[in-house]
Amino acid sequence: MLDLKAFQKITYGVYLVSSRCGDILSGCVVNTLTQVTTSPAQVTIAINKQNYTTEIIRKSGRFTAVVLSQSAMMELIGRFGFHCSRDTEKFESFRTRVDESGVPFVCEQASARFSCKVVSSMDAGTHIIFLGEVEAAEVLDSTGPMSYAYYHQIKNGITPPRASVYQPEPAKGYRCRICGYVLDSDTVPDDFVCPICGRGKEHLEKITG
Amino acid sequence: MLDLKAFQKITYGVYLVSSRCGDILSGCVVNTLTQVTTSPAQVTIAINKQNYTTEIIRKSGRFTAVVLSQSAMMELIGRFGFHCSRDTEKFESFRTRVDESGVPFVCEQASARFSCKVVSSMDAGTHIIFLGEVEAAEVLDSTGPMSYAYYHQIKNGITPPRASVYQPEPAKGYRCRICGYVLDSDTVPDDFVCPICGRGKEHLEKITG
Repeated sequence: MLDLKAFQKITYGVYLVSSRCGDILSGCVVNTLTQVTTSPAQVTIAINKQNYTTEIIRKSGRFTAVVLSQSAMMELIGRFGFHCSRDTEKFESFRTRVDESGVPFVCEQASARFSCKVVSSMDAGTHIIFLGEVEAAEVLDSTGPMSYAYYHQIKNGITPPRASVYQPEPAKGYRCRICGYVLDSDTVPDDFVCPICGRGKEHLEKITG
Repeated sequence: MLDLKAFQKITYGVYLVSSRCGDILSGCVVNTLTQVTTSPAQVTIAINKQNYTTEIIRKSGRFTAVVLSQSAMMELIGRFGFHCSRDTEKFESFRTRVDESGVPFVCEQASARFSCKVVSSMDAGTHIIFLGEVEAAEVLDSTGPMSYAYYHQIKNGITPPRASVYQPEPAKGYRCRICGYVLDSDTVPDDFVCPICGRGKEHLEKITG
């Protein structure tokens, strides 16, 4: 028995993970940041092997994780969570800083940041788990962190197929091929703009079966 | 710069992890359960190497993790979180079931359970990270999961020194040597019973410095 609803009882936050290798910047959204030890302070993140950010972390051995605030906008989450850093400049629309190791991180709509050096990793199949020693940690604002439940229930956020916790769901209407957003309608207006990834009508496909 | 307050912005739930090796049962509390992949469904837990439960998981290669409900009582958390399975029968005071692999789990005050086979592990210093393939998952009740923030803010819960997220804090008064509970008082009544671990006055030590 594997009731998928059981997995929805696990509690998470929402985090932006960024990295840098030379001139290449990358970033994505994860819900899997966890502190695992206190002395020294170490955290893990689970991240899909196909993510460009994973490649950059592997090359550079560094990542910076930002805790998104409850006030974070869908535009920020959509930009980092539903586009690929290979072909999208993710950082330019947001206020950023560069940490002690030269890794950029978004410093708005964010509660805290952790700058980490990768000290170990574990293969988990589709994903890899990076163990990072936290070399710098900083509170960015006093607002509370966004929980994954809040992201779903209040912000109407969706989970992309590459996420650790993705669950395919039966749906009808039209689905955005870029980000998975579902438009629950029989028709699509010509000026449709995806509320998650910002793409147009041409990226929608009719959901069948 | 390593601002410890930044770590308090990470979001967690509260979980009971149990295991069994022959006639030996063990269980403890963790805040580090995370789903890391969907196909197959896999989760990680970070757990202190000194915990007896860690030894039993290593020997048996199995663990069952239960998501505590928001309604879970401090007695349950105190029993599993602040005693050692070596010298305490943790399960007898609570309603339990045995999963498909013979591992007991608490089925009251709990939202869901995951029965896992260990497929890999990673050394993280004081802690070990177990990667478990979820062989059975089940919703236990419809109440919401307890978040770690709720545990602290609403239930006045404390974090024991062996936890992944332990932060030493300056304190005054008396500290329970068993569970770390701090009695903020200049005197201790003779009939003192620790509200967390249930021990008496003889286990308190005066906080100095």
